Amino acid sequence: MRAMDHPEFTAAALAERFSLQLQGDGATVVRGVATLASAGPGQLAFLANPRYRSQLADTGASVVVVRADDAASVQGTALVARDPYVAFARISALFEKLPARAPGIHPSAAIDPTAEVSPDAHVGPFVSIGARSKVATGCVIGPGCVIGDDCELGEGCELQARVTLYTRVRLGKRVRILPGAVLGAAGFGLAMDAGQWVNVPQLGGVVVGDDCEIGANSCIDRGALDDTVLEEDVRIDNLVQIGHNVRIGAHTAMAGCSAAAGSAKIGRYCLVGGGAGILGHLEVTDKVLVTSMSLVTHSIREPGEYSSGTPLTDNRTWRKNAARFKQLDALARRVNASTQGSPE
Amino acid sequence: MRAMDHPEFTAAALAERFSLQLQGDGATVVRGVATLASAGPGQLAFLANPRYRSQLADTGASVVVVRADDAASVQGTALVARDPYVAFARISALFEKLPARAPGIHPSAAIDPTAEVSPDAHVGPFVSIGARSKVATGCVIGPGCVIGDDCELGEGCELQARVTLYTRVRLGKRVRILPGAVLGAAGFGLAMDAGQWVNVPQLGGVVVGDDCEIGANSCIDRGALDDTVLEEDVRIDNLVQIGHNVRIGAHTAMAGCSAAAGSAKIGRYCLVGGGAGILGHLEVTDKVLVTSMSLVTHSIREPGEYSSGTPLTDNRTWRKNAARFKQLDALARRVNASTQGSPE
Amino acid sequence: MRAMDHPEFTAAALAERFSLQLQGDGATVVRGVATLASAGPGQLAFLANPRYRSQLADTGASVVVVRADDAASVQGTALVARDPYVAFARISALFEKLPARAPGIHPSAAIDPTAEVSPDAHVGPFVSIGARSKVATGCVIGPGCVIGDDCELGEGCELQARVTLYTRVRLGKRVRILPGAVLGAAGFGLAMDAGQWVNVPQLGGVVVGDDCEIGANSCIDRGALDDTVLEEDVRIDNLVQIGHNVRIGAHTAMAGCSAAAGSAKIGRYCLVGGGAGILGHLEVTDKVLVTSMSLVTHSIREPGEYSSGTPLTDNRTWRKNAARFKQLDALARRVNASTQGSPE
Repeated sequence: MRAMDHPEFTAAALAERFSLQLQGDGATVVRGVATLASAGPGQLAFLANPRYRSQLADTGASVVVVRADDAASVQGTALVARDPYVAFARISALFEKLPARAPGIHPSAAIDPTAEVSPDAHVGPFVSIGARSKVATGCVIGPGCVIGDDCELGEGCELQARVTLYTRVRLGKRVRILPGAVLGAAGFGLAMDAGQWVNVPQLGGVVVGDDCEIGANSCIDRGALDDTVLEEDVRIDNLVQIGHNVRIGAHTAMAGCSAAAGSAKIGRYCLVGGGAGILGHLEVTDKVLVTSMSLVTHSIREPGEYSSGTPLTDNRTWRKNAARFKQLDALARRVNASTQGSPE
Repeated sequence: MRAMDHPEFTAAALAERFSLQLQGDGATVVRGVATLASAGPGQLAFLANPRYRSQLADTGASVVVVRADDAASVQGTALVARDPYVAFARISALFEKLPARAPGIHPSAAIDPTAEVSPDAHVGPFVSIGARSKVATGCVIGPGCVIGDDCELGEGCELQARVTLYTRVRLGKRVRILPGAVLGAAGFGLAMDAGQWVNVPQLGGVVVGDDCEIGANSCIDRGALDDTVLEEDVRIDNLVQIGHNVRIGAHTAMAGCSAAAGSAKIGRYCLVGGGAGILGHLEVTDKVLVTSMSLVTHSIREPGEYSSGTPLTDNRTWRKNAARFKQLDALARRVNASTQGSPE
Repeated sequence: MRAMDHPEFTAAALAERFSLQLQGDGATVVRGVATLASAGPGQLAFLANPRYRSQLADTGASVVVVRADDAASVQGTALVARDPYVAFARISALFEKLPARAPGIHPSAAIDPTAEVSPDAHVGPFVSIGARSKVATGCVIGPGCVIGDDCELGEGCELQARVTLYTRVRLGKRVRILPGAVLGAAGFGLAMDAGQWVNVPQLGGVVVGDDCEIGANSCIDRGALDDTVLEEDVRIDNLVQIGHNVRIGAHTAMAGCSAAAGSAKIGRYCLVGGGAGILGHLEVTDKVLVTSMSLVTHSIREPGEYSSGTPLTDNRTWRKNAARFKQLDALARRVNASTQGSPE
């Protein structure tokens, strides 16, 4: 099994496999990948961001993936790609050591007799699977995962470790969920009655489209009446909170610690920055970028980049300016009064 | 068991059970609940928010729960309630499919011989319970939960799945904890000594009142000397951080990703918005609403609504305004100088 | 075993053990620790913060740890320390009840035959350990932990409960990880190709230095090519997100809900406040304090305190000022125009 442990490829083989243009010695052997700055012999690196162009001259990489207009600057062997970062992603997948997950159910797993688990799925130790849940062919359920009642996993899903699908979670194909994530927990639905909170039952589920990925310790609540929905190829980073009945459009990505409150609708191809928040019941159209730690307080109808917050400064400067923020309306009124009749 | 799987009720029966006023045909059968927009025959919907009033005319719902002043607009059968949302919450609980949790201890559970578990409690697979911990009658401990040493669970508590009560956590009655939450981990107590951090032992515990609910992957640290305390009916959403020695008053609700730092005291009937933060050692009085992603930087003595932050705009506009924020004190001084002696 | 359950020490013994100066009756017995306000007979308290000085007169504590200049105000027995908080931390560790963790492997644990676990390590129930992973002497692996392939734990590490080291995580000595934390999950590396996301394989690992501590439900992603690195004595609170290839300098502490995005470099002895964020690829020098919920949007070259955001006010005031923030650039232009030529 040496080949699997230490894979190697010639530059020519990589060029053919990924439809790249070869420049230089096709027999150059690639045994791994690295950054331009740290690569050594036998390693392949890439140049995507122009500001690292100066590293081309000094890199120890045997092969570099570049755009056509950088190819002339490569000393050794080059693979020319339309998008070097994508090409690099695909090549470096060849060197990814994936844990072996043999088909079969670990003897410790606790599986309800009404659950249906494909015989070629891998079910690890200390996994529990509830009533009527279905695990399709090619799924990998890592150690300590909890799948509750009435869940469905499509072909080739991967729950890495300690993932919870609490109830009524339906995953499409090839959904990957990182450790500790919780899908299908009750949404935060409360009604105040005579001074006490009453829980509003959360009768919906969670529907996750094909090729989605959910990060570590993130939470996606099940819907109150209808479902919470992620369309296909949605990418959720770690520690993200998705409230009940949120709908996220295809190919949208949300970075770490961001959140969408109940019933928010987010479009396709959106990017939500780290720590950003979207208030409940708002609608965000397609191709919106929300910068990190911004709060979306109204619906967004036009594609583009949106921000809130103030810039970072040293604390002394910040204190002076922040104190003035509290007087901003008064200041503006004063300016208005004193410049009335003035030009502009 | 059909009745449990597919419960149904007449409108008259619901009216009687929840003390609602019936309008129309009391024999109308209700087999489920839905939103006004999506309800069909056999389903019950509700109108609480006036802006959905226009949906009354077109709803396919067989029964609608409304306020008295909306009853005339209902075509079919209506149930008239003082608070339709509360009535709906109670009715829809009849249709909630709760997982069956038979009394008894799963054979895989690892229970310390000094722990006391009520014989009618449900203890699921891969649960561990530490020394001297007590689980009262009617408790449900879902798969993968870890209860450490010296914990106590009152009657009817539910730890849904993969919950950790690390040590010295005492739950009142009917406390519900969602998957992945961690209670009783050490508070973040550090002292710097000769350039190295020294841990300050966290000798206190966590006390949670009756009817509290803690969301998925939330954390409530144990106290340093005294306990961290949640009074009764406190509702904590997902991914919320509660530091050591925090005290939260009864009926307060904290939305997802919010946080209270060490020794903060929050009053009763407060609402803390998503992503909002409360600094350590502050006091917040009763009936305070903190809007989403606001930071409470000083104690709040008066009930009411509080906010910080700036509004969301397109990024180009934001950049121009944010740059001016850094000059705000200078700007104010300039205005003061130029308008000295002017009116206002 | 009474001594272990209920330890007690004379003031003289504590003075000698921790090199403190004794004032008063060295035979005074200490059986526990408490705050100045709540301490009673047999308890030791401390005064570090001058604003609690008035509590010295009324405290019921039998022994108080104080600075030299407060010693005269202590009625009973005092222990005089250069840093009373540090001395208190060390003394109170004597009264910490730590759970007994006998060496040995729980029979339920699932350990790969190629893993190496020191015979004196404690491995709790429902633990799984993957291929080629190594657990050194004195380690404690609590219930439900998942250690994947190719991980290494140095001497005396503690994974408290339900911790995941997904793959290629190398811990130094005495690293303590609180429940639910996830180390070594894939970083959020994505490339867009023809309208679909492509995962960039995350081939690096996580390296954690000696004496680090990671809080409950926090996440530290593994690197894309190189490793994500925490130097020694780094302290991470709960629900913190550390992206791939971040490097955190020795003795830096990050409070709850803070985050550092991919490839950020944080210096030594930094303090990152709760909910604060550091954007990707930035560099923060040593001894920087970032206040709570601030966003670091540019590299920081000078030690000191840094902030962003606006102050909390009542919502009505905030609304008026926030509306003016949107006009801030226009306001500044107007002031500039009207005061041109005027004295500043």
